[in-house]
Amino acid sequence: MAEHASRLRLSGLCFLLQVVIILLFAVLVRYSPEGSPGCAPQLNCSRRSQDPALQQPPGFRDVHVQVLLSFGLLVVLLGRYGPGSAAIIILITAFAIQWAVLMQGMLFFFLNGKIYVGAQSMVSADFCTAAVLISTGAVLGRVNPVQMLLLALLEVTVCTLNEYILLGLMGVSDSGRSLTVHTFGAYFGLMVSRALYQPHQDRRKREEQQDKGPQTDVFAVVGTIYLWIFWPSFTSTTTTVPHSAENWAVLNTYFSLVASTVSTFILCPVLYEESTPRMVQIQDATLAGMAVMGMAGEMLVAPFGALIAGFLVGLISPLGFRFFTPVLHSRLKIQDTCGVHNTHGLPGVLGALLGTLLTLLATADTHGHRLELVFPLVAQGSRTITDQALVQLGALPLTLLLATLGGFLTGRVLKIKGLRRSPEAQYKENSVSREVAEEERDPSGKEELGTSTLV
Amino acid sequence: MAEHASRLRLSGLCFLLQVVIILLFAVLVRYSPEGSPGCAPQLNCSRRSQDPALQQPPGFRDVHVQVLLSFGLLVVLLGRYGPGSAAIIILITAFAIQWAVLMQGMLFFFLNGKIYVGAQSMVSADFCTAAVLISTGAVLGRVNPVQMLLLALLEVTVCTLNEYILLGLMGVSDSGRSLTVHTFGAYFGLMVSRALYQPHQDRRKREEQQDKGPQTDVFAVVGTIYLWIFWPSFTSTTTTVPHSAENWAVLNTYFSLVASTVSTFILCPVLYEESTPRMVQIQDATLAGMAVMGMAGEMLVAPFGALIAGFLVGLISPLGFRFFTPVLHSRLKIQDTCGVHNTHGLPGVLGALLGTLLTLLATADTHGHRLELVFPLVAQGSRTITDQALVQLGALPLTLLLATLGGFLTGRVLKIKGLRRSPEAQYKENSVSREVAEEERDPSGKEELGTSTLV
Amino acid sequence: MAEHASRLRLSGLCFLLQVVIILLFAVLVRYSPEGSPGCAPQLNCSRRSQDPALQQPPGFRDVHVQVLLSFGLLVVLLGRYGPGSAAIIILITAFAIQWAVLMQGMLFFFLNGKIYVGAQSMVSADFCTAAVLISTGAVLGRVNPVQMLLLALLEVTVCTLNEYILLGLMGVSDSGRSLTVHTFGAYFGLMVSRALYQPHQDRRKREEQQDKGPQTDVFAVVGTIYLWIFWPSFTSTTTTVPHSAENWAVLNTYFSLVASTVSTFILCPVLYEESTPRMVQIQDATLAGMAVMGMAGEMLVAPFGALIAGFLVGLISPLGFRFFTPVLHSRLKIQDTCGVHNTHGLPGVLGALLGTLLTLLATADTHGHRLELVFPLVAQGSRTITDQALVQLGALPLTLLLATLGGFLTGRVLKIKGLRRSPEAQYKENSVSREVAEEERDPSGKEELGTSTLV
Repeated sequence: MAEHASRLRLSGLCFLLQVVIILLFAVLVRYSPEGSPGCAPQLNCSRRSQDPALQQPPGFRDVHVQVLLSFGLLVVLLGRYGPGSAAIIILITAFAIQWAVLMQGMLFFFLNGKIYVGAQSMVSADFCTAAVLISTGAVLGRVNPVQMLLLALLEVTVCTLNEYILLGLMGVSDSGRSLTVHTFGAYFGLMVSRALYQPHQDRRKREEQQDKGPQTDVFAVVGTIYLWIFWPSFTSTTTTVPHSAENWAVLNTYFSLVASTVSTFILCPVLYEESTPRMVQIQDATLAGMAVMGMAGEMLVAPFGALIAGFLVGLISPLGFRFFTPVLHSRLKIQDTCGVHNTHGLPGVLGALLGTLLTLLATADTHGHRLELVFPLVAQGSRTITDQALVQLGALPLTLLLATLGGFLTGRVLKIKGLRRSPEAQYKENSVSREVAEEERDPSGKEELGTSTLV
Repeated sequence: MAEHASRLRLSGLCFLLQVVIILLFAVLVRYSPEGSPGCAPQLNCSRRSQDPALQQPPGFRDVHVQVLLSFGLLVVLLGRYGPGSAAIIILITAFAIQWAVLMQGMLFFFLNGKIYVGAQSMVSADFCTAAVLISTGAVLGRVNPVQMLLLALLEVTVCTLNEYILLGLMGVSDSGRSLTVHTFGAYFGLMVSRALYQPHQDRRKREEQQDKGPQTDVFAVVGTIYLWIFWPSFTSTTTTVPHSAENWAVLNTYFSLVASTVSTFILCPVLYEESTPRMVQIQDATLAGMAVMGMAGEMLVAPFGALIAGFLVGLISPLGFRFFTPVLHSRLKIQDTCGVHNTHGLPGVLGALLGTLLTLLATADTHGHRLELVFPLVAQGSRTITDQALVQLGALPLTLLLATLGGFLTGRVLKIKGLRRSPEAQYKENSVSREVAEEERDPSGKEELGTSTLV
Repeated sequence: MAEHASRLRLSGLCFLLQVVIILLFAVLVRYSPEGSPGCAPQLNCSRRSQDPALQQPPGFRDVHVQVLLSFGLLVVLLGRYGPGSAAIIILITAFAIQWAVLMQGMLFFFLNGKIYVGAQSMVSADFCTAAVLISTGAVLGRVNPVQMLLLALLEVTVCTLNEYILLGLMGVSDSGRSLTVHTFGAYFGLMVSRALYQPHQDRRKREEQQDKGPQTDVFAVVGTIYLWIFWPSFTSTTTTVPHSAENWAVLNTYFSLVASTVSTFILCPVLYEESTPRMVQIQDATLAGMAVMGMAGEMLVAPFGALIAGFLVGLISPLGFRFFTPVLHSRLKIQDTCGVHNTHGLPGVLGALLGTLLTLLATADTHGHRLELVFPLVAQGSRTITDQALVQLGALPLTLLLATLGGFLTGRVLKIKGLRRSPEAQYKENSVSREVAEEERDPSGKEELGTSTLV
């Protein structure tokens, strides 16, 4: 009975939200004028419109294919949560993407009371959705669908705000979104997890059911392949620089993930008793290798830098799983279901620091006319390299602040009485969603290893 | 013994057909002259050559990648019929694509006794194959491979004829093929199913074996992802308009499928006792959301229209499965193995009606110079908007007529004595292919739910 | 204990190699100057820089997406070796790709003591990796990870040398790499297999455990689809000719694989007792149909040629599995775990012969100005058509010689005492990797049928 009511509650909420979104779209959203990929010259698109890369719009189809590919990436990886939870994740994605088009449109593509959408809006909305999915990875198995839906709506809002401040106001170069997606998503999710912490309940049951998931490995194989194939291109979608710099971002990302994959093979036999790492560990290394190249990808001027960065982050990520995740749980009372801290949070932070360092080292000599493209404000003379580096550095604590604050408040909202079920219903629901989480986790019985995450 | 003979019969038929096709290719088919994507200026390509989009050929690689992607789409979805039947479906596809190149070449790319093929021919052949695969979804499990091969050859012929009348002679705008693929394929398949109806035999055995297919869900996840990623681009391959209008078709399709996905989450808890829909139901909603955007995709000038259309069709499709499919079976004696009527037939018809309505509403104001691209004949002044709307409307009954007539005759041909097996052999064969069909069906035991289909 | 040491040995070897590679990259490798896809005009890129297609660089993104896609292809197919071995294969790939960038850079992209890398280097590195993976298919289950790593490093070196002689010095047209990838990889792997032959040990155990792998078919379905979708585009990545000739290479490859698929359906019922081929057999036919089009793809001027070539090679490949593989094993003492001889070796040789024949037939009449693009040296007048044909023909025995010689020496190196384990450890390791190989093999118990291979 309570369960029946709860089913209809999700259904009703979806109906309500979708109708509201349709009304908002009807009032506010129009397609952007022709010839522009989302930001007509006369629109006040803050920094974006001053961007040379966008004033010579890239081929629409290129951008678009990548929107969809990247989206596919998200969904493919969802597969890892098992067929049962894939449905909910698709629902979250469907809402997050619509909501992100609205939110980002308000800040970036707003003119005369209308939002003008185009391919560029879809790319941005997509990145926002990626952040939501990363956060979901931290709390999976401890929230019900209605709570996940709320989490998505709130996170999209805060994430857009963060993106606007960083990219729009401060002029940070973060083409691969080390900060605005990886770092933000991870710490937001961890704070929500902290706010939802329930000491006694979770631990016990979880340890009983560990032997799930022969499918998990299959999905991990598919997910890893998908990342190797499409992520480097995805990274380059939003590079601020067309042509050759994009080239470099792609190749750097590629070298980084190759090196971080090798690192996993070096460290796993030392940390665990297996001779070769399992696929989820390789997937985690791949993710970490990508997150670290987010900001630095277009700034590195020689491939060996990417090899070194990937190599080191590939060593740090498994060490984090082994030694840091248990501390996180026992001391800080943060459960991290899929280990997003090790695959997105930490590599994102390291990527931002690396980006800052590279900004400091950037000179007209090393970059040539690419300087103008990677750091337009520096090339125009309105900023010195040192100023730019300070801005890049300042973006990190700001993102952390917004992520933790936003995550904490969201966690509070999710704990409101009405959103939790009556105990019985909640138990029932939990047992279902927990099963999903278990499936996702390490089949070999080591929880700290359970690694691997969403995006 | 009889079985041995039947195996060799399929083998021999394949050999014969392939040799005939090779001979026809040797006599008739040449690559089209350079610089044209399939239709040289001097060729009599009926309306297509008057098309501004084709006279400035799109980048070949773009088109081609999509040919192959779309083909991949077909095959991926076939995966859902289980590994056993995937082989047969690939065979059907291999023949349909060769035959369609020949048939369509005769009508569209014929000059001086030669067919000139290029990327454009492959795209068209691909669309034809899609219609064949949709029809296959309606009769799956009740035809043997030889019958399926014949069905493919006959349907390609009729489908090409229908396409020639609609696109070539009447000047209908149907870039996403709501009519020529979705509607045609669904009703053709349903009529074949009607002609093959055998009252007593099928029902019983089917209900016994219901608990098949943990793989089904995995394939449904993969299939859904594939659709989300690639279908919107696919739709835009053949839009009559390059650049920005294509842009709109892609985004409209995308918004439509997002909304129809949400609809599934709204309706399923009401219709069934599950709190979240299964993946096959989400896949069906995705398909319906795409079929409805086929014709209207390039005509909608604001995204909220696509959201509304997707939202409504996402509600209608599950209602069709729940209430209409049983009626279809009991009253009209039409078995619809994979529910193609709900995912392709009905949404296709609704899409055609929506397209007609939008044609009526089109003015130079709303479309600007896009009018010339979406409705070239109107922009040239050789037709009024009302005439164009009448033509769009008239295309619907014409397609239905050709589909049902063609399907009925094909069904008759398939019932010819020689094509059916001796009872024992047939029983054996049936039990195999039925197993496949079961796998594809709803594992939870509700037949009406058995949803989900091919393309 | 011995096992523990061996685990750490792999880990240590990886560490050592990766550090060496990073150092080499730091000293030698830089990104190539802007505007060039990997070979600046002033660089001594041997024949490549004289190539009109490369002097007008293709859109970088196109090339790049295909690099990654092709890589994905390799990895997807690896999936077929089962999740357990996928990890090792990814490791091999990660090393092979870095090593190939270095090796090929030394020969093709070297200037003033630096290697200039770009998208083009990645494509080449990728092809080399493909050859390694093909060879791996021949010895799978009989080598440990350390041996595989050595095999990869040695093969990349010899493969690059072969490529340099053929493409750089002799001016052979082999855009789809019939010779340098398919033929080379297959015969190299077969010779390594010959050198590692151990008469008594292997056979018995293998025949016991035959009923593995319901997953195998799923992976075969995915692999086949992947090939159909992406391989034709991949082939055209490196065609020496832009625009329309590429067009033809893609369509020819496509027609060839369609016809070879049909051939499988014709021959399988005759050779075996099944009415439809299994998916691995279809995948093998697809591979064979592609290998045969490698060299000839851009030379065929009418589609029926591709249909005939695909049709014939589709017949030869299953005959090879049925009659030639057992002979190979019993007489020549070469075990071919995945049947690479039938899917890559033989079709590659046939493709090279077909290419030679087509070169002889090429005239200015049939090719028009494409002659200049497919055979630039002929068009420039520095070579006659007959000379070119002799060069194409001479490349075949040269490749075979280098492949067998390289493979034999590599096999000798792999047999060095230190690389093999102490008997106990080896037994243990073997039983694991053998299991993997079994999974890959034919579940129905017929070894000769065990077909199907890597790329």
